[in-house]
Amino acid sequence: MSNDNFTFEVIAFDADDTLWHNEPLYRGAQHQALDILAQYHDRDWIERRMYETEIRNLEHYGYGIKGFTLSMIETAIELTEGRISGAEIGRIIELTREMFSAPVELLEGVEETIRILAASHELMLITKGDLFEQQAKIARSGLADHFSKIEIVPIKISDTYLSITARHEITPHRFLMIGNSIRSDILPVIEIGGRAIHIPYETTWEHEIVPETELAGKEFFRLEHIRELPALIDELKFKIE
Amino acid sequence: MSNDNFTFEVIAFDADDTLWHNEPLYRGAQHQALDILAQYHDRDWIERRMYETEIRNLEHYGYGIKGFTLSMIETAIELTEGRISGAEIGRIIELTREMFSAPVELLEGVEETIRILAASHELMLITKGDLFEQQAKIARSGLADHFSKIEIVPIKISDTYLSITARHEITPHRFLMIGNSIRSDILPVIEIGGRAIHIPYETTWEHEIVPETELAGKEFFRLEHIRELPALIDELKFKIE
Repeated sequence: MSNDNFTFEVIAFDADDTLWHNEPLYRGAQHQALDILAQYHDRDWIERRMYETEIRNLEHYGYGIKGFTLSMIETAIELTEGRISGAEIGRIIELTREMFSAPVELLEGVEETIRILAASHELMLITKGDLFEQQAKIARSGLADHFSKIEIVPIKISDTYLSITARHEITPHRFLMIGNSIRSDILPVIEIGGRAIHIPYETTWEHEIVPETELAGKEFFRLEHIRELPALIDELKFKIE
Repeated sequence: MSNDNFTFEVIAFDADDTLWHNEPLYRGAQHQALDILAQYHDRDWIERRMYETEIRNLEHYGYGIKGFTLSMIETAIELTEGRISGAEIGRIIELTREMFSAPVELLEGVEETIRILAASHELMLITKGDLFEQQAKIARSGLADHFSKIEIVPIKISDTYLSITARHEITPHRFLMIGNSIRSDILPVIEIGGRAIHIPYETTWEHEIVPETELAGKEFFRLEHIRELPALIDELKFKIE
């Protein structure tokens, strides 16, 4: 293959906090839950406990609003030693329920960039989380038609990407992944020989943060804004291989 | 194509209450939740309200343990007008949490039947529900290796089966689906021109029950036991087309 013929077979995108805003919804709901619980304990301490419960429950609940809600309720019961009232728990459920019907807000520049890239490349969406919730968001995003393949997966580790590239007969080194999470979108893709572009979001969920030391020797690109993507992909055509 | 060459391209199985017991886990947890709530209201009435909440929430929560738990909590708060204690809600969460780690119990005859059929046919698993929960159950079932394709879908309607058969290039009339739910496994498959075999489970979740009048003119087979499957499939080879 000559260098100037190089193209990516598939350009894949993460969804939450890469194409549309997501983390602020969770933080907003948690903030309101903390308001309810502030009479019982110090906010920072409750927040810390909520995070610990959430991570401990990931193994059973996976990612998504339902598990997040159950973990908040569980924390609220534990830290009040059961003194929290049913009515207060009802308010926590109520405010997370609003998350389900929240509008999907695209990040600035996403729509144009996706349209530009879809004209010349096969695009794929790879998102982790709850099947039901992710499908609803994809439908409401208005972007679904630009993606020829959509994969909703329970977790993003290198095996996930291996299985997706194998199933769709994509050569890993001609697979490009773009996302905001180094842990989920970048490192596992590099591990299988793919290429990755990191576009950080304004905030990163603590669980997705990777210590800088783990990044030593890892080759990937980083952009500040999704608008810069088409130019970088054009450039890569001639630089890779 | 001559009659005696007819084979199904793919034989697909539902999972919950077709390959392994599932409904009793839900009913068992609900039974215990009713014990907790019995001091507030009549059991039948609470049960009815729980069912209504569950169905109303399906649109947001989808199927699975987390949504079931949240619906039970919501009902408990509503029917006690918030008087239920945090501690009691904690007990409801506790008993549904046991569902996540419950062993996967295969129905009698499943293992042998699947092994027999896998020797001569391509088998597929099509299950609706929560991605995380279903993956865990499939892994624990010990059956995963017999299925060349596994699809976890949010809902089973005719579009679901159309998209699956299209994606895997299966001719619908050479696609056979086996399951315990007429609503989810049988009717939508017939609608796309596929074949279906109904094997009723000992109990059917109310939401999956289809009135007999809706079955008029629908052609499908019904077996009492999964052990009868290989013989019926053998017979069908010569009867279909």
